[in-house]
Amino acid sequence: MGYTLSTTLERPFDRALGEVREALAGQGFGVLTEIDLKATLKAKLDVDVAPQVILGACRPQLAHQALGIDPAIATVLPCNVVVRSVGDATTVVEAFDPDAMTRLAGDALVDVAADARRRLTAALDQLARLDGAVDPHEED
Amino acid sequence: MGYTLSTTLERPFDRALGEVREALAGQGFGVLTEIDLKATLKAKLDVDVAPQVILGACRPQLAHQALGIDPAIATVLPCNVVVRSVGDATTVVEAFDPDAMTRLAGDALVDVAADARRRLTAALDQLARLDGAVDPHEED
Repeated sequence: MGYTLSTTLERPFDRALGEVREALAGQGFGVLTEIDLKATLKAKLDVDVAPQVILGACRPQLAHQALGIDPAIATVLPCNVVVRSVGDATTVVEAFDPDAMTRLAGDALVDVAADARRRLTAALDQLARLDGAVDPHEED
Repeated sequence: MGYTLSTTLERPFDRALGEVREALAGQGFGVLTEIDLKATLKAKLDVDVAPQVILGACRPQLAHQALGIDPAIATVLPCNVVVRSVGDATTVVEAFDPDAMTRLAGDALVDVAADARRRLTAALDQLARLDGAVDPHEED
């Protein structure tokens, strides 16, 4: 059973990253943290990995509800959304699936997780729909 | 089945937070992100919760190994360590259990998760041992 929600976008990393931020904001998620994995691993280990960024997305209302049910849930907050380049014009967007949160923390969180999942899915769907629609002349 | 490793410390939040940072550093974890949950929820929702901070702890070697096995694992990185006040002189330290990572992502990550778990457990054990040892005159 998977633990992520993901979509593959046929556009370059930088453009996809900007669109992911917008799509998350559109669903009420603020980005509380941001880790440039490529830069971090280069700096710490001098290794080269594909461009990838971990965005820590948080919808405060949902976080507050979840913490009220199970304070330990803070250990899986915020909800990470990873944007990873897999080619010059191909980018994967992958979010931690809130369903996996309920598998770990139990059924008390089902409603909050369902809300979070619906919003993340909507953001990913919107990103997928943008494919080919933005800068259509690039398709020429 | 639990999804966190935790310990309860008989000392105030601020002191515990400093000690947690030191204990993590002692096990080779850098803190890549930091979320002041109390301040965030106050600012966004005007609600009051106990002082609590989410530290995003990362040991780059382990992260790099894990990403090589399963790139999706980035959605549960870094490893969150939550420091939460539960009283004037009592603080809970709770980390996401790397074992839960293998429950989600599968057995390929067992070795990396075991290494991460050993280090986090050592950090928590060290913090628990500090109880009563630091500033012992406060016990008077």
